[in-house]
Amino acid sequence: MRLVISVNELNRRIQNLLESINKERLDALYIVSSANIAYLTNFFFIPTERPIAYVLTKNGDRILIVPRLEYEHAIKYAYVDKVLYYLEYPDEKHPMERIAQILKELKLGDKRIGFDIDGYGHIYGYRGPRLSNLLKEAKMIYARDLIEELRIVKSDEEIMLMRESAKWTIYVHRLLQDYIQPGLYEDEISMAASMEATLAIARAIGGLYRPGGWFAGAHAGFRGQIGLHSFYPHSLTQHFKLKKGDILVTGAGANISGYSVELERTLILGEPSDKVKKYFKLMVEAQKTAMDMIKPGIKCSDVDRMVRKFFKDNGIMEFWRHHTGHGLGLEMHEAPFLDIGYNRVLKEGMIVSVEPGIYVPGLGGFRHSDTILVTGDGYETLTEYPRELEDLIIYT
Amino acid sequence: MRLVISVNELNRRIQNLLESINKERLDALYIVSSANIAYLTNFFFIPTERPIAYVLTKNGDRILIVPRLEYEHAIKYAYVDKVLYYLEYPDEKHPMERIAQILKELKLGDKRIGFDIDGYGHIYGYRGPRLSNLLKEAKMIYARDLIEELRIVKSDEEIMLMRESAKWTIYVHRLLQDYIQPGLYEDEISMAASMEATLAIARAIGGLYRPGGWFAGAHAGFRGQIGLHSFYPHSLTQHFKLKKGDILVTGAGANISGYSVELERTLILGEPSDKVKKYFKLMVEAQKTAMDMIKPGIKCSDVDRMVRKFFKDNGIMEFWRHHTGHGLGLEMHEAPFLDIGYNRVLKEGMIVSVEPGIYVPGLGGFRHSDTILVTGDGYETLTEYPRELEDLIIYT
Repeated sequence: MRLVISVNELNRRIQNLLESINKERLDALYIVSSANIAYLTNFFFIPTERPIAYVLTKNGDRILIVPRLEYEHAIKYAYVDKVLYYLEYPDEKHPMERIAQILKELKLGDKRIGFDIDGYGHIYGYRGPRLSNLLKEAKMIYARDLIEELRIVKSDEEIMLMRESAKWTIYVHRLLQDYIQPGLYEDEISMAASMEATLAIARAIGGLYRPGGWFAGAHAGFRGQIGLHSFYPHSLTQHFKLKKGDILVTGAGANISGYSVELERTLILGEPSDKVKKYFKLMVEAQKTAMDMIKPGIKCSDVDRMVRKFFKDNGIMEFWRHHTGHGLGLEMHEAPFLDIGYNRVLKEGMIVSVEPGIYVPGLGGFRHSDTILVTGDGYETLTEYPRELEDLIIYT
Repeated sequence: MRLVISVNELNRRIQNLLESINKERLDALYIVSSANIAYLTNFFFIPTERPIAYVLTKNGDRILIVPRLEYEHAIKYAYVDKVLYYLEYPDEKHPMERIAQILKELKLGDKRIGFDIDGYGHIYGYRGPRLSNLLKEAKMIYARDLIEELRIVKSDEEIMLMRESAKWTIYVHRLLQDYIQPGLYEDEISMAASMEATLAIARAIGGLYRPGGWFAGAHAGFRGQIGLHSFYPHSLTQHFKLKKGDILVTGAGANISGYSVELERTLILGEPSDKVKKYFKLMVEAQKTAMDMIKPGIKCSDVDRMVRKFFKDNGIMEFWRHHTGHGLGLEMHEAPFLDIGYNRVLKEGMIVSVEPGIYVPGLGGFRHSDTILVTGDGYETLTEYPRELEDLIIYT
């Protein structure tokens, strides 16, 4: 079993998309989001100010338009019928003009074209016209959701890759936990664990998979969520030295052919205070409250609503900072969202993070995140790793 | 001297921007690009599907609108008058509606508002309306270039940070070169060098600077540009083991308060063949051809034109894949571009990469990249590092 999305699976994706194209009476789809392109072609690349566009016609023709410097790279790795190129960005002729011209040559200039982005995104110094401004005769229709609709439920192959990711994610997180000591910089713990696990992946399955997406290999770290700074849910590293008494909030993942899970744990460096014990316990309960609800047919919003009720019932709403979780896979955050405003129901094959957090000013943050697969009658935790305080205290 | 942008400098930036706002007769500026926000506030954050928006009114009021989870983080680190928050994305009320409402409360609902993005960018699973659709009475005006106009010429403080970045970039690249051996995975060389240099930064200047932007600390690696794969200018790592005879194309940088330079070198593992020597030499000459032209008053397009002439004159246009270089600083790629389509002239204080590359099928890629500061009468190389073959052969 190769740890890469198969051609059969790519064909299924395209077939599904063609059905949607047909249903929406589109003549073609124009896609520039890098995750969507990876989803349809297995081609991973560095997104820059040079647009890369994928065109799928209703007849099933798959064309990738790339800058000259990605041409051979795309020919080697992209699952498409044809690769075309423009020379550069900005160039004397703007890439979007060349792309519009290609669409006209494909006889799509006056047709119904679905798009995920009308032109190209705001990446680096990119500037350019909307595609609809260059194709005045075409009917441009927002169609990003056609692909989201496919990506939101994971296939067996995607689940296999995310299981593999979970295995290495647990491993890199175990290394991280083992290497924690007061007096070390967060960087040396993080980088030692990440290096060891990445090499283990390369040795165990290297050559069998094509990395891409978030990062290469495995990664675990703290991102500055150390001591009082764990209070900030999206802290950035400040190269702290760890010290006794610190609350640590971790994060780990492992890229397997573009897919990753996430695993986060709250660790306590040394004996926890009663206050720390109290919020830690509440956080574990909040996460369990959410997980216990996960099964097909449940509204995403209801999961988040129940977690907020838990916060209110326990008088800790002042420490609430964010919703319960989000989908993930090819991207770190994707649909569905476990959020009171997101009313779709969970389906078998959806994969979400479950990570309610409690953030106490002057004390710190408490958050476990697990990656959960919705099964036929409930859920399965892909990132099985100890959750209880006794297993997450680092004794010094 | 603190290695961080000073409040005086931030005030100068805002003052300059207010002059542009005045000149364009705008009542306010609405900014959501994370690099632009960092430029104006010193606030670095993880961009997600939750929009973060900065509003600068013509009176100089600076308001940052963030999701709840970034509120205290922004209060602590963002140089603004006021931080407001919405709860979450997607939430029952869409964040963009809350942002539109705040703009109305600021009496901007029917005014002339300049924007860098009309709403929010295409990040992760974000979906949302254009801001102009929610503020029908307002006159929304594309104004991204007002900030680009400031960022395109680096200030003394920015140059100081990029000099500091260059120091550590050279260091991490030296480690990388020192650690190269046949039989090692690219990851272990890259991660060992990056870890050591990052720790050296933390020890030497940690606490004096606030990281952010690209990555934390220093990084050097190959990104899969190894052996035949060096032929792909934007290769991705495949966890190759290095072997004798490999052509290696490196990349290195170091994040100092959000700014980084880039340094890339072509290294040869073992004795180079005559063919390798030939293209290596041509690549060094192409880079020198470009550098020799760098001085104030020269058109960016002319630099790239001269490099293409060099390719043509030497009969190697078939090995050309990309333009000569790009600006950099807060982002990896930014204006100006050393590209035949970019006709602005170089000015003192601009910082650009100079990196023409030669890519020979069946052999490999050849590219040095240096980060160059345009001075009063020429240029200064920030990333001074050996360029000649004799210094870049790894003898085994």
